[in-house]
Amino acid sequence: MIEAQARGVFSADGPFEKTTITRRDVGPKDVLIEIKYAGICHSDIHTAWQEWGNIEFPLTPGHEIAGVVAQVGPAVTKYKVGDRVGVGCMVDSCGECEYCQQGLEQFCVNGMVGTYNSVNKYTDGERTQGGYSSHIVVKEDFVLRIPDGLELDHAAPLLCAGITTYSPLHHWGAGPGKKVAVIGLGGLGHMAVKIAHAMGAEVTVLSHSDKKRDDSIRLGADNYVNTSEEGALKKLANTYDLIINTVSSADIDLTGYLQTLKVDGTLVNVGAPAEHIPVQAGALIGGRRSFAGSLIGGINETQEMLDFCGEHNLGAEIEVISADDIDKAYDRVMNSDVRYRFVIDNATL
Amino acid sequence: MIEAQARGVFSADGPFEKTTITRRDVGPKDVLIEIKYAGICHSDIHTAWQEWGNIEFPLTPGHEIAGVVAQVGPAVTKYKVGDRVGVGCMVDSCGECEYCQQGLEQFCVNGMVGTYNSVNKYTDGERTQGGYSSHIVVKEDFVLRIPDGLELDHAAPLLCAGITTYSPLHHWGAGPGKKVAVIGLGGLGHMAVKIAHAMGAEVTVLSHSDKKRDDSIRLGADNYVNTSEEGALKKLANTYDLIINTVSSADIDLTGYLQTLKVDGTLVNVGAPAEHIPVQAGALIGGRRSFAGSLIGGINETQEMLDFCGEHNLGAEIEVISADDIDKAYDRVMNSDVRYRFVIDNATL
Repeated sequence: MIEAQARGVFSADGPFEKTTITRRDVGPKDVLIEIKYAGICHSDIHTAWQEWGNIEFPLTPGHEIAGVVAQVGPAVTKYKVGDRVGVGCMVDSCGECEYCQQGLEQFCVNGMVGTYNSVNKYTDGERTQGGYSSHIVVKEDFVLRIPDGLELDHAAPLLCAGITTYSPLHHWGAGPGKKVAVIGLGGLGHMAVKIAHAMGAEVTVLSHSDKKRDDSIRLGADNYVNTSEEGALKKLANTYDLIINTVSSADIDLTGYLQTLKVDGTLVNVGAPAEHIPVQAGALIGGRRSFAGSLIGGINETQEMLDFCGEHNLGAEIEVISADDIDKAYDRVMNSDVRYRFVIDNATL
Repeated sequence: MIEAQARGVFSADGPFEKTTITRRDVGPKDVLIEIKYAGICHSDIHTAWQEWGNIEFPLTPGHEIAGVVAQVGPAVTKYKVGDRVGVGCMVDSCGECEYCQQGLEQFCVNGMVGTYNSVNKYTDGERTQGGYSSHIVVKEDFVLRIPDGLELDHAAPLLCAGITTYSPLHHWGAGPGKKVAVIGLGGLGHMAVKIAHAMGAEVTVLSHSDKKRDDSIRLGADNYVNTSEEGALKKLANTYDLIINTVSSADIDLTGYLQTLKVDGTLVNVGAPAEHIPVQAGALIGGRRSFAGSLIGGINETQEMLDFCGEHNLGAEIEVISADDIDKAYDRVMNSDVRYRFVIDNATL
């Protein structure tokens, strides 16, 4: 067993505390990673605060992990000590079901293993613990290579925010000649803008105030619409091929957004609010439109995303924090007071 | 002007009465059709009873029209007197917008002209009147040819119920190796079953009782599931590539149905209930699934559907009624007491 320094919460309302966690010994196909940076994802907060249901404490969250290989098992072929690598939201899956076989491990029929707060037969009953820690052991098939052109701190958020937006943009064909709108400019939204722009699409940010207009344009958006202005959405009827909705709230006028889609257009939710979202079927029928969902991406696609971001120099916009400031950072995320991702410097653990 | 015998309603709660309506003179590119049969679509009832908003009375509904060409304009090239033809839900569109150019006249940006209760510049301000009448004048581009193998009475419902189900089945790739479910076995559902089966898909009917089990199998379904049985939908998790929802009600457990879709599966609504349908985004995200809508089909696609139905001998299951029984038929439709479409014998007008 390997002892790792970590930060963890011991109850739903507890602060983060210094702790140690154990990692399994490095198996034949395992990679031991010294974690340099860990992004703070909204999911970390939902989980730690038990907003997504009861969990087992203590919990060390973190699934936006960037680091350096410290040791490899004897059967590892893809990585060597010193390689710059990342780990995202999954650390295992069955590998045998129809979706694993297609590289869609996130939809593993037998249940993919989340990087933290996850238990199943692929982890031998061990509860997984995430990236707010000094080291992690992951089988090499779930380790990603971080391209040379990306700094590790800017790369960390790509492992969740990057792939969560890249995958639907890629799947639904964002590219030259396509108009893509992004609802919300946060951790996910700002990556959606960067990636869609790099893919060659015409990008519009739809936001409920004027606050993020300048940033949107700077990040690559061609247009910005303040949706709180009277009739803003109506003017956009029949405009977009694809909308990525990064706002995880059921309190949204989905009908208004759906009607800004062209015929055969798709609005993709990447967030899953607990409440049901009311959908007017007529808005779908009136343009053969789709309301869809997307969940991170498979391992191969995640590597493809990292390579794409490396090629186009697309790191996340980040604010690096000390591990002592995780609680403060959580509060600031909840107040939308981050541009656009907090990243923990794991040297401060 | 041409005088046509018709049945019409004069108020939202009025019965159908004998009346006469006028049709425009046959223009250079127009076709005069002697209507032999007109199907009764649920939309006729919604419109006549003002459930879809206030309308201008009197109204002659009917957009499932089958008949014989009685006269053609001098510039008509596709039809001659005596040809067996049909008219569906549209009689005109702008012909110039991006969707008309793509053969998607149902999504005409300038508004397609409905066969009844429709007014716009393409009809010179004339309010359109439908198929419960002896004759109709339609420009040849919106006239369909009914294949020899189909009887006119069985063909009439294809012009709405047929194309409404054929189009999404075709668009979303129903065929060999695909599993298609149909929610509801009514006018639309029974055609969805016949067409999906003829396309080579494995077809399942999902219905809320056991009443339509035998009919479903007879019509071509491979499986039948009574969804009122405890846990019926849960057992079907990750099963279907495509679901056609023919039930026009917001009172439906969409989440349960969505979870029966495979990854990348689509549930298509062909009905548009006035109320919003609650959708759990998690059910979409958990399998990159889509909730979509579909509206009839374009003119070329409608002809393709008729040719397909001719080739596979797929007429609608009908009950032919006298024009005197329209009100009674409406009540029976509302009570789901029809297997599966009422068709008016227009000789009884």
